[in-house]
Amino acid sequence: MRLRNVKNAKNILNSSKYYVDNPSDFKGFWKDKFANKSKIMLEIGMGKGDFIIGMAEKYPDINFIGIEKYESVLVRGVQKLDTKNLDNVLVINADAKNLSDIFDREIDTIFLNFSDPWPKKRHYKRRLTYRDFLSVYDEISSDDAKIVMKTDNDMLFESSLIELNNYGYVFDEIHLDLWSADIENIKTEYEIKFGNKGYTIKYLKAHKNHSRQKR
Amino acid sequence: MRLRNVKNAKNILNSSKYYVDNPSDFKGFWKDKFANKSKIMLEIGMGKGDFIIGMAEKYPDINFIGIEKYESVLVRGVQKLDTKNLDNVLVINADAKNLSDIFDREIDTIFLNFSDPWPKKRHYKRRLTYRDFLSVYDEISSDDAKIVMKTDNDMLFESSLIELNNYGYVFDEIHLDLWSADIENIKTEYEIKFGNKGYTIKYLKAHKNHSRQKR
Repeated sequence: MRLRNVKNAKNILNSSKYYVDNPSDFKGFWKDKFANKSKIMLEIGMGKGDFIIGMAEKYPDINFIGIEKYESVLVRGVQKLDTKNLDNVLVINADAKNLSDIFDREIDTIFLNFSDPWPKKRHYKRRLTYRDFLSVYDEISSDDAKIVMKTDNDMLFESSLIELNNYGYVFDEIHLDLWSADIENIKTEYEIKFGNKGYTIKYLKAHKNHSRQKR
Repeated sequence: MRLRNVKNAKNILNSSKYYVDNPSDFKGFWKDKFANKSKIMLEIGMGKGDFIIGMAEKYPDINFIGIEKYESVLVRGVQKLDTKNLDNVLVINADAKNLSDIFDREIDTIFLNFSDPWPKKRHYKRRLTYRDFLSVYDEISSDDAKIVMKTDNDMLFESSLIELNNYGYVFDEIHLDLWSADIENIKTEYEIKFGNKGYTIKYLKAHKNHSRQKR
C-alpha cells in the first residue's frame, strides 16, 4: 500500500478511545480492557479497518483487536472507528513479529487478510504464515487457536497451505474462490477493489492441532 | 468420460504383454514382474494412458502400474502401449477400492490425475482422496508413500487438501496454476483438452507423515 504521511497522526491516535498506546502493559490482561469478557480475535494488518469494524458490528459479543504496523494507515482506521460507538474493538500500532510482547495466550482467532505476499523467494521468511510467525502465534494463542486467511495471491496461498500443514495445523475450510462460496464474508477495502477487477479470493480456516483430530 | 463399447476388449487386453489379468495373484510380489527391481508408482485412473506412457518413457529406471476401472477405456491405453517397447509398465483393470487385494505395501507413489470430482455433496465418499481411500492407500503403500494429484476441479482440490491434511499427510508442493509453475509435468489427454480451453490445473504433492516432520 502506498503510504501518505498523515499530519498529527500520533495526536489523532492518542485522542481516540479505540487506540492503545502502550499495549505491552496489558499483556495477560486484555480481557479486562473490554466490557464483555468473551473471546478475543485479532486481525494482523487491519489496514483501514473495514473488516474489523464490520466484524465488531456483526458480533457484539466477541472482542476484536486490530494490529497495523503503519501509523499513517492505522489513522484512517481510527478515524472510521471514531464515527462508531463500539465497545468491543481496540487497535494497536505494532509489528506482527513483536506480538508475543503484547499478548499471552489470550487470542482465540487470528485473521490474516490480504497480507503482503512478499513474492520474492529471498523474502519468504517475511510472509505472515512463515513458521517463525506461526511460532509467535503459538505464544499469543489459546490452545484451540484458529487462523482465518484471505488473499488474492496464489503464491502466498500455496506457501501458506504448506507452512500451516507442515506446522501441524488442521484445515477446516478451504475455498479457491471465496466469492462463489456460500459462507459469511466481510470484505476488506482491498478485497472489494481487487475482487471487482476479477481476481479470485482464496480463503482458508485452520486450527491448531494438539491431538490429531479423529473424525 | 463417455464410454464407447469396444468389441473384443477382453481379447485385446489379454493379448497384450502389458496387461495383467489376475492381479491379486501377484500381491506382495510385484517387483518380480519387472526387469528392474526399483520402486513402483501407481496411477489410479490411467484413462487412455498418455501420462503413464510418458512417465515410463522418461523414467526407465522406475516401474509404473496403471489402474483403470473401465475396460473399454483401458483398451485404448493398451493399444497405445502395444506400439511401444517398454519393460517398466503394466496395467490392471480394477477399481481403486479393491487395491488392497492387489498390493501389499509395495507402492512408492500414487498419481491421481483428473479423478472424477463427484461434485454432489452426497457423493463425497466416492472421491479418491476421501479418507476411506486414504486408508486403502495406507495398505498398499510403503511407509514413505507419496500422493501426487492433478485436477482442474476446484471443489475436488479443496476437499482433497482438507482430507489429506486431516489424515496426516504433509504437503511438499502445491500449485494453483500448474502450467505456470516451473516444474516437470507430463500432461494427460484430459489435461491438454481442458487446459487449452483455459481451465487452470491444480497440483499437489504430499507424503505420509509418520513422525511429524521437523524442518
